[in-house]
Amino acid sequence: MVVVNVEVTAHSKRVPIHGSFGRVYFKDTSQSHHMIRRLTMKAAIMNGIRQVGIEEIPQPEIRPDQALVAIRAVGVCGSDIHYYTHGRIGDYVVNPPFILGHECAGVIVEVGSQVTNVAPGDRVAVEPGVPCRRCVFCKQGRYNLCRDVVFLATPPVNGAFAEYIAHAADFLYKLPDNASFNDGAMCEPLSTGMQAVNRSGLRMGDSVFVAGVGPIGLMTLQAFRAAGAGAVYVSDLDTSRLELAKKLGATTVFQANDADLISELRDLTDGLGPDIVVETAGSERATAQSIDIVRPGGVVVLVGLAPTAGVEMNTLAAIDKEIDIRGVFRYANTYPAALSMIARGTIDVTSMVTAEYPFEDTDRALSDVADRLPGIVKAVVTNE
Amino acid sequence: MVVVNVEVTAHSKRVPIHGSFGRVYFKDTSQSHHMIRRLTMKAAIMNGIRQVGIEEIPQPEIRPDQALVAIRAVGVCGSDIHYYTHGRIGDYVVNPPFILGHECAGVIVEVGSQVTNVAPGDRVAVEPGVPCRRCVFCKQGRYNLCRDVVFLATPPVNGAFAEYIAHAADFLYKLPDNASFNDGAMCEPLSTGMQAVNRSGLRMGDSVFVAGVGPIGLMTLQAFRAAGAGAVYVSDLDTSRLELAKKLGATTVFQANDADLISELRDLTDGLGPDIVVETAGSERATAQSIDIVRPGGVVVLVGLAPTAGVEMNTLAAIDKEIDIRGVFRYANTYPAALSMIARGTIDVTSMVTAEYPFEDTDRALSDVADRLPGIVKAVVTNE
Amino acid sequence: MVVVNVEVTAHSKRVPIHGSFGRVYFKDTSQSHHMIRRLTMKAAIMNGIRQVGIEEIPQPEIRPDQALVAIRAVGVCGSDIHYYTHGRIGDYVVNPPFILGHECAGVIVEVGSQVTNVAPGDRVAVEPGVPCRRCVFCKQGRYNLCRDVVFLATPPVNGAFAEYIAHAADFLYKLPDNASFNDGAMCEPLSTGMQAVNRSGLRMGDSVFVAGVGPIGLMTLQAFRAAGAGAVYVSDLDTSRLELAKKLGATTVFQANDADLISELRDLTDGLGPDIVVETAGSERATAQSIDIVRPGGVVVLVGLAPTAGVEMNTLAAIDKEIDIRGVFRYANTYPAALSMIARGTIDVTSMVTAEYPFEDTDRALSDVADRLPGIVKAVVTNE
Amino acid sequence: MVVVNVEVTAHSKRVPIHGSFGRVYFKDTSQSHHMIRRLTMKAAIMNGIRQVGIEEIPQPEIRPDQALVAIRAVGVCGSDIHYYTHGRIGDYVVNPPFILGHECAGVIVEVGSQVTNVAPGDRVAVEPGVPCRRCVFCKQGRYNLCRDVVFLATPPVNGAFAEYIAHAADFLYKLPDNASFNDGAMCEPLSTGMQAVNRSGLRMGDSVFVAGVGPIGLMTLQAFRAAGAGAVYVSDLDTSRLELAKKLGATTVFQANDADLISELRDLTDGLGPDIVVETAGSERATAQSIDIVRPGGVVVLVGLAPTAGVEMNTLAAIDKEIDIRGVFRYANTYPAALSMIARGTIDVTSMVTAEYPFEDTDRALSDVADRLPGIVKAVVTNE
Repeated sequence: MVVVNVEVTAHSKRVPIHGSFGRVYFKDTSQSHHMIRRLTMKAAIMNGIRQVGIEEIPQPEIRPDQALVAIRAVGVCGSDIHYYTHGRIGDYVVNPPFILGHECAGVIVEVGSQVTNVAPGDRVAVEPGVPCRRCVFCKQGRYNLCRDVVFLATPPVNGAFAEYIAHAADFLYKLPDNASFNDGAMCEPLSTGMQAVNRSGLRMGDSVFVAGVGPIGLMTLQAFRAAGAGAVYVSDLDTSRLELAKKLGATTVFQANDADLISELRDLTDGLGPDIVVETAGSERATAQSIDIVRPGGVVVLVGLAPTAGVEMNTLAAIDKEIDIRGVFRYANTYPAALSMIARGTIDVTSMVTAEYPFEDTDRALSDVADRLPGIVKAVVTNE
Repeated sequence: MVVVNVEVTAHSKRVPIHGSFGRVYFKDTSQSHHMIRRLTMKAAIMNGIRQVGIEEIPQPEIRPDQALVAIRAVGVCGSDIHYYTHGRIGDYVVNPPFILGHECAGVIVEVGSQVTNVAPGDRVAVEPGVPCRRCVFCKQGRYNLCRDVVFLATPPVNGAFAEYIAHAADFLYKLPDNASFNDGAMCEPLSTGMQAVNRSGLRMGDSVFVAGVGPIGLMTLQAFRAAGAGAVYVSDLDTSRLELAKKLGATTVFQANDADLISELRDLTDGLGPDIVVETAGSERATAQSIDIVRPGGVVVLVGLAPTAGVEMNTLAAIDKEIDIRGVFRYANTYPAALSMIARGTIDVTSMVTAEYPFEDTDRALSDVADRLPGIVKAVVTNE
Repeated sequence: MVVVNVEVTAHSKRVPIHGSFGRVYFKDTSQSHHMIRRLTMKAAIMNGIRQVGIEEIPQPEIRPDQALVAIRAVGVCGSDIHYYTHGRIGDYVVNPPFILGHECAGVIVEVGSQVTNVAPGDRVAVEPGVPCRRCVFCKQGRYNLCRDVVFLATPPVNGAFAEYIAHAADFLYKLPDNASFNDGAMCEPLSTGMQAVNRSGLRMGDSVFVAGVGPIGLMTLQAFRAAGAGAVYVSDLDTSRLELAKKLGATTVFQANDADLISELRDLTDGLGPDIVVETAGSERATAQSIDIVRPGGVVVLVGLAPTAGVEMNTLAAIDKEIDIRGVFRYANTYPAALSMIARGTIDVTSMVTAEYPFEDTDRALSDVADRLPGIVKAVVTNE
Repeated sequence: MVVVNVEVTAHSKRVPIHGSFGRVYFKDTSQSHHMIRRLTMKAAIMNGIRQVGIEEIPQPEIRPDQALVAIRAVGVCGSDIHYYTHGRIGDYVVNPPFILGHECAGVIVEVGSQVTNVAPGDRVAVEPGVPCRRCVFCKQGRYNLCRDVVFLATPPVNGAFAEYIAHAADFLYKLPDNASFNDGAMCEPLSTGMQAVNRSGLRMGDSVFVAGVGPIGLMTLQAFRAAGAGAVYVSDLDTSRLELAKKLGATTVFQANDADLISELRDLTDGLGPDIVVETAGSERATAQSIDIVRPGGVVVLVGLAPTAGVEMNTLAAIDKEIDIRGVFRYANTYPAALSMIARGTIDVTSMVTAEYPFEDTDRALSDVADRLPGIVKAVVTNE
């Protein structure tokens, strides 16, 4: 890493910046963690649908409770791809110029006056959402539900495909010595899998079925295994992913369109069905089916976002079996445990990183994933 | 009560009994708690759709762990009415002759050799479902999910519209001195409301919205209030029931078809919606709406059975708000607490009993409720 | 209330203030919520053991996230008395001048630029502890365990026996219209009782035994009743307090030195003992005895601080009965529920306020309580 | 195994049997699962302190819900040793002749008429405690607290150092193909470790300290690791056991009398102490110390029985840190999960079996363990 030491004058630089990035950088300073400073940095700027290019922009300035992080690795997430190809997710609309990327790790460059938990030189994983700390959700320990969270790469908050970000220091976690920056970046999707575990009420030995083994499904599989699940069954349409799932510990793998899926799962689970079913595929069919699959008294965890809002659910069966259906929205209080498990080798996140791109090729990383280039499980943009 | 002391000979009596009640009484003795004994009793026998008449049948015999209960009060439940008018509920088909009724209380007449918790003369509430005691559900304390439960008035198990039932003594609970037989019978629907509380994870002061204030909704309202809920909002189409709900402690009542229901509830709950939403109406609209009404991180409890199995649910919102949707199927471990609260006056179940019928008029009780006679909240058949 | 509008010059006023209050007000501004402003106010200043007098000191200045609260009611707590008579509690040493008082309510006078939840004129209850918002305890929803909490009247943080305090606005809660300032102040001890409920895992109908019915014991009794407990038994040495407990809903009251206490409690609870035992008396004997009293599988909650640290506990019985013993330290997330229950009349806190003193007589309030003046349950200092 | 097919006449055999085993076999048939049958078997009979010899006694007869199990492996437990050397544990007094042994596995020889879950020839692990199935504890899923449990080798119920036992079939669990009889027997001490996990409320990544790594401590260590704990620290006085603990996954091992234990643990856990502390050593010092070691808000789990009932506990610290102290008494609902984890290789119980004795040498197995023969972690008596 090279810190951009070129001192720029406010005059010469502010004009083009003002033109291109005005709204993001100057209008929303209260919500954004990026603020003007007199140094510049490179960032991968999204200027339109499938248009991301490297540009020079002002470095963010840190507040007293923040640290400046030189970004080393950023995973490409499905939400990045959705913004990249559609320009929006629901009510969150990209208003270019915008910076994507929120699964990230890096090195501390500078810390604010109130920061004590990290110091320059520390290698850290970045938990991308910083909540308000004051609302009822924050006070009750469910800060992922904070209505005023500032979350990297969720418009209008810029993300981490950049040389630096300024971030609340208490949402930065030191990487163990044996953890790579990729590991640190992978804490983010792993956290979603861990949140699925935490929300599921898993008891030691419970049987689990995970529908869908994309990156989130694979993280979920591993999190359940690390947390003491018994058998973990998985399904997917993609045979190569099922292979990887098997390698990562799946007990039995199923083709997602297997017509006998439910009865085969019952045969494996004393005729009752798995204790826990986790939907990570975002499939309407799998979402609806989860009620039929799960055993009486069991728990269905919904993680994957189906393409449409309305799914026909058999609520009579949900009542008759007295099951729980529980949503997962991001995660809370998972990073320390994620790093602990990665340090101990309990969870293998590096197997999932199948493609690395240099920072300059951020656009290619995004388009390769958007185009579903064969063989990519998780793509990471690195900047060393 | 008069115990039927007429000794009948096997010959003179067995022929007609054999003819009419053979399958129920002789074929399924392992599952049924009713067995041949040499005394007879009166029972309200369902011989077809909307055909219930008083007949003389053999008294049940008790096993060593059972007690013989002289029934004094039996509530008319929606499921009784469904069997009475349709002859089935899903896969449970009435095969006449059959006896309805499961919300009941009475007096112990005789106890088996192993029974120690009750004695002849004790006034008791009857918990109608007796589980197998051996399956994983029974062992984990969720015996309401036992696949082999024997439940009064769930075919082929006969119910309590009769002079006597034989019942596992550990599912009989002594009535406090100040509790009536009606109170004892009402423990059953109250238990459903209590199960809704237990499943909801209620914390002191949580706001609650109960959709539907039929008997179960009213019991639910009262159970939440007794368990420390803050505001309890309710809705129904029936204005007189809303009046009763108000009298029983509802904070605010709403017309169920109020177009502004969601926004009005938000205004009352800091803009977030109630912490807990309980659907007791069995309405598809209310079931679907519950996801929109409940606050982020909140809990939707489904109690009411919608007429069709498929309800279009906004699972994206369920994920985005990270809510729980939890079914309620009957109840477990509620009777001691129900009686404790009734004894202490915390819950008023007698207000709900608006119509009493003598045992001989069981058919009229059933048809009046089936015909939705105005003013009936809960009908009870008594036999003193 | 009269806002002190006299503009004072920094020169004329800072000298004496500097002399008397220098360390508290100038040295520790990061931890203290009280800061110099150019207006003055009256405060009840503790200058030594049992020496509290009204003095004129600078008003606190508010930070952007704080509000200035004109204090209307302050309860006298046992910890205030301990500081007043001993000058310390454990490692917390009063370094005069110091201001006691933390059970308080008042009126908003001014709000900082970031405050949106309250406005000038609002009547509010004050939750006295403001945590760091950044540590693992804060993030997990147990902010009462925050190591860096700033808590009113816990040295070196000044308390509320003053005309004004500056306080984080999100720890101020609007009083319902029918709640008095005394009610607002009583939310603090009530919160301790509520925390005992929350920590106990109370299920509807559970039987409870509360050892000690001083103010905290009475609040605990009421909180358990409001939260759906079945029978609530209590004990104390003071007959008049047992009378009050009875009036506030105790099912049966016991003399604390009753030799047959354990067996009598067993007789009332099916021979097993109460489901939950709460020790609020701070008695070593009652603490030790709680293990014997509670039923197998039950929960002992420790609230009262015994005079010495070491209590001989029957850990063999704790194992044999597989009980839980759970400490209660202050509270978290209780105020909204406390106010909701007070608004609804579920809990009666005003019965507990048996003595009111004008602000000028703060010293007398403290000494009367310290001297255990007969008839005082809870003393409140008011300033209208 | 050879089934004893010798038909014996009631006359010739009953006399001696009556003489030696009369009280046990004939007097207490309601509580005992052993009943007279006309076949005989060999059993290791305890006739006095440290006196165990093989004798011929009647085979037990099975009830309709029981199975006859030919015992293949029985672990020697600390409680067996205590009975063997002291003749009693608390109120449980051995009244010879008596049969010890409760950690066992075997093969089904015969099943009662109601049994469906196992069949002759099945290899099974035996859960040794059979509860009443009717009390409040059984109904709530905490059947380990049942006051009327019939538990192998807890006087007056005979144990498993015999060729056969009759046992409730629903407490027999089929061994996975890759699990040995030793594995099956080890499910019992493993279950205690699992109960410690279940009682601890472990969340993924929590740090754990286990005091004592005897067999139960080692099982506890493994159960916590399998259930997703982060670092697991252990202590013991015995260096060789610490070695084994290290091999089985302990993160760091400590000498139990290390004067700096507490501060070293703090250094490893961000200065706060481990999230969970489990005392398995039965040491008064370790029990008392656990409160100081555990972090604020943490959980202390007590498993080991100290030699005396009274341990001086710092209850002030328990309150100040708002910790939980939770007893563990046996276990409930652990066997299916135990076998699932053994099948999957998540937990290694065979490393713990360091000494095997043929059935004929049961007395030597007991005396070797009683004499603390070096190198024995867990001794097992086998009968193939």
